[in-house]
Amino acid sequence: MSYRFEARRIYRMPTHFGPAPGPRQLPPGIVADRANSPRRLSVAASFLTDAALLERHLPDGFALVGDPVVTVEFHYMTGIDWLAGRGYTMVHVGWPARFDGTRDHAAGRFLAVVWENLADPIITGRDEIGHPKLYAEVDAPRQWDGTQICSAGWMGFRFLDLSVADLRAAERPVAPSDGTLMLKYVPGTGDWGRHALSQVTLTPAADPDMTIESRQVGRGEVRFRRAAWTDLPTMYHVVDALAELPVIEARGGSVQHSRGGKPYLDQKVLV
Amino acid sequence: MSYRFEARRIYRMPTHFGPAPGPRQLPPGIVADRANSPRRLSVAASFLTDAALLERHLPDGFALVGDPVVTVEFHYMTGIDWLAGRGYTMVHVGWPARFDGTRDHAAGRFLAVVWENLADPIITGRDEIGHPKLYAEVDAPRQWDGTQICSAGWMGFRFLDLSVADLRAAERPVAPSDGTLMLKYVPGTGDWGRHALSQVTLTPAADPDMTIESRQVGRGEVRFRRAAWTDLPTMYHVVDALAELPVIEARGGSVQHSRGGKPYLDQKVLV
Amino acid sequence: MSYRFEARRIYRMPTHFGPAPGPRQLPPGIVADRANSPRRLSVAASFLTDAALLERHLPDGFALVGDPVVTVEFHYMTGIDWLAGRGYTMVHVGWPARFDGTRDHAAGRFLAVVWENLADPIITGRDEIGHPKLYAEVDAPRQWDGTQICSAGWMGFRFLDLSVADLRAAERPVAPSDGTLMLKYVPGTGDWGRHALSQVTLTPAADPDMTIESRQVGRGEVRFRRAAWTDLPTMYHVVDALAELPVIEARGGSVQHSRGGKPYLDQKVLV
Amino acid sequence: MSYRFEARRIYRMPTHFGPAPGPRQLPPGIVADRANSPRRLSVAASFLTDAALLERHLPDGFALVGDPVVTVEFHYMTGIDWLAGRGYTMVHVGWPARFDGTRDHAAGRFLAVVWENLADPIITGRDEIGHPKLYAEVDAPRQWDGTQICSAGWMGFRFLDLSVADLRAAERPVAPSDGTLMLKYVPGTGDWGRHALSQVTLTPAADPDMTIESRQVGRGEVRFRRAAWTDLPTMYHVVDALAELPVIEARGGSVQHSRGGKPYLDQKVLV
Repeated sequence: MSYRFEARRIYRMPTHFGPAPGPRQLPPGIVADRANSPRRLSVAASFLTDAALLERHLPDGFALVGDPVVTVEFHYMTGIDWLAGRGYTMVHVGWPARFDGTRDHAAGRFLAVVWENLADPIITGRDEIGHPKLYAEVDAPRQWDGTQICSAGWMGFRFLDLSVADLRAAERPVAPSDGTLMLKYVPGTGDWGRHALSQVTLTPAADPDMTIESRQVGRGEVRFRRAAWTDLPTMYHVVDALAELPVIEARGGSVQHSRGGKPYLDQKVLV
Repeated sequence: MSYRFEARRIYRMPTHFGPAPGPRQLPPGIVADRANSPRRLSVAASFLTDAALLERHLPDGFALVGDPVVTVEFHYMTGIDWLAGRGYTMVHVGWPARFDGTRDHAAGRFLAVVWENLADPIITGRDEIGHPKLYAEVDAPRQWDGTQICSAGWMGFRFLDLSVADLRAAERPVAPSDGTLMLKYVPGTGDWGRHALSQVTLTPAADPDMTIESRQVGRGEVRFRRAAWTDLPTMYHVVDALAELPVIEARGGSVQHSRGGKPYLDQKVLV
Repeated sequence: MSYRFEARRIYRMPTHFGPAPGPRQLPPGIVADRANSPRRLSVAASFLTDAALLERHLPDGFALVGDPVVTVEFHYMTGIDWLAGRGYTMVHVGWPARFDGTRDHAAGRFLAVVWENLADPIITGRDEIGHPKLYAEVDAPRQWDGTQICSAGWMGFRFLDLSVADLRAAERPVAPSDGTLMLKYVPGTGDWGRHALSQVTLTPAADPDMTIESRQVGRGEVRFRRAAWTDLPTMYHVVDALAELPVIEARGGSVQHSRGGKPYLDQKVLV
Repeated sequence: MSYRFEARRIYRMPTHFGPAPGPRQLPPGIVADRANSPRRLSVAASFLTDAALLERHLPDGFALVGDPVVTVEFHYMTGIDWLAGRGYTMVHVGWPARFDGTRDHAAGRFLAVVWENLADPIITGRDEIGHPKLYAEVDAPRQWDGTQICSAGWMGFRFLDLSVADLRAAERPVAPSDGTLMLKYVPGTGDWGRHALSQVTLTPAADPDMTIESRQVGRGEVRFRRAAWTDLPTMYHVVDALAELPVIEARGGSVQHSRGGKPYLDQKVLV
């Protein structure tokens, strides 16, 4: 007898061994700790760039909103409940945009690409949420001479450096937004060039279990380093497109400590 | 102006930076070397197990064929053209099965799970082919005292050991088969517990550019080590299901060197 | 013209490129931050063992003092000044002993072996201080279900697990001691089996720049896993000797956060 | 009872657990395989530089011999007997020199610095032989578009790139030499700035168990990338000194496959 999928349970490839444990589905008896998990150090820097260039990297149905400001964020997470206390790092790249669908309308952060240094959340995030996640090696965060320093690479090629200097205490930012927008896309098999799935998804802005513990702002700097295909054979096109965006003006940086957060069970598809 | 997808080009998340380079789509000017790429050391071991237990890990439409023999294979690859000469390792777990769909029928190897030690082919394989790939750390292959030794783990927990001893020269095996069968599955977003995509895919058996350079057979041994959720929080269910399969009888092992192979552009969906 | 060694500067192999930067010698213009560097999470557990067995691992001139209690400590360090803000982890194994030399006498912790997950401090520590440092992979520290969990391995073989459970706040321990004792030893070249250097060295106990920020105690557990030569070909003898020590009684564990510390410039040779 | 050192056995820190297994001392019952271990891929490139600059990196008693040609070699080794079949990579930097001591005289390769990607042979080599070994991450060797490509880095900073292009078959080189010369140096403890040990050691040229299986030569290229202290806080001085050497003329490169070799038991001290 072959197996049956259990109702209302999340599965991922391989599906043959039962429902898949992950951020949105813990094993029986394991209790999520949304108020404390994860612990997070977030380091961000922004820059104003060219609107026309940026627009070329927006999918159909999206438009820029406000200044064309790219923000790059490193989120160093520890104490993650669904990893039994382990951690990993996310790097987010996004900018303000709005989506106007046939039914739904939302404005917020367009999440253009995410790099992570652990394959497990790459798999869960791509499949369950539509996070555009790729893999990168991320150096441990460090602060030296008053500057917070971040970098990411792949097989010895460091393609991203970010730093925030001259840190000073700051208030929590208030940025009204509907949330974070992304495009969940799965290519078709065999019928090459067509998609099997393509849908806009939204993470609503509310995250009531997240607590900011401290926040500093400072002078941010971001540098993407142009790569050849031989340097980054699966993603030189991503890095080079970002490296091509001119830094017209730096728009500040921040260093923030926080804890807690939601498991994105409120993620939804917009049409 | 937002971007348009180019026709007949393969895209993957993030789609916003153009068609995605990968095994099935090299950048302009890069020529695949199918006769020589990759170089591959393949180490395999098989065991007879309990049919009823094995059947529980077959999806709907599938049935066991012949003896319930599980085969675990480590493929250490180098000189991969689409990675500009780099390498990585795949671990395949499969057994003989047949699929009877409403239209299509095929018998061959059911590929139950794949582990790889590089995230990039995990992403391309899951998305484009339907390979049920997960991440594992894989130790470099080694031979000691006449035994070829393989192992795989995750964050310090070694969950798989395989060895092949008493090696002697052997002929190329002839195993008539329609190819390799798998289930491409993507969970839905928001509508938790439903799938966004679920389809059987087949890699046809023919691989004319692959050349076996040498082959030995020997005494094979496979051991999956049972894990707690805290050891392997995203895949203990996979490893434990495999660890639960009794080794009724060892069914031999092999060590093979080969070169070349196809990029799976012949992968197709069965219905 | 060949080079000359500069007076009063520390050199290490290779000496040909000038004095060597390191924990005890920063480049011109770099100021050590002894009050804040490093940040340290220390996790320790102790057990009572067999005195006769333990004594076999004391060098000439040493004797056990008090109960034969082995303590294993993981020190996860970040923000290290001499690494420009980077971090690494030390694992210490020691027990109480005294040294009676021809001139010098001291009682304190005998540091039997140290594992670290970074080669650079292994080199500086062995050469400059006489630290008996070896290499190990150390998983990031994690706390799960109220238990602090630590582990160390080498090429996929996890040889040490330590945990501290049931944590509760505690006072700073007062353990009068002359400091930490070790044996600096360098084998001779060519004249195999003779030493080129063998001397007892002492780290005096005082460390005025170190501040304990918080301290908890709890139920400690230590397990060394016996290894074959094929598992740990350069150090199975170390791990197996420690695995052989019976755990007669657990003697507690601790989790401590601290900052600052000295660079061991007060290290001295005892005779 | 404290332990006694066994006669004619090699010890390394920590000495407290018995004689130390390693390249020159296998456990009882383990037989070295000098004719086949290791398997080695060696990639080398040379360049003519400025004699006066090079001389500044020769210790007392040494002088340049012939053209001031620096050679950088990557040795990717697998199947190492003393590591039970595992492997690692060495990077050698050297140039021709002679040593004239009070008694001994020898001419050959001066081994200025070695990087390795495994701590264990760094420890054995520094202590037992006097190899000036440091740690580096080394990417797996790869060949792309007819070029063999090598690189080395440390915590994300790639400091060395080497390539050999336009490969063609070649004969084994004949370079009469007394062997490889190096300086074994151990700093003193406490008495900072003085050495505890400083001696010239020689690896005699003969290596009768080593067999070259194939050899190609081609166009070699070497590039050291200048580092700040914050990039390489324990060895920027080494990398920067090498980066400063002008490449006056490329002097060719080679790619060689070999097997077997000696364990350096013939290493000797020159005076």
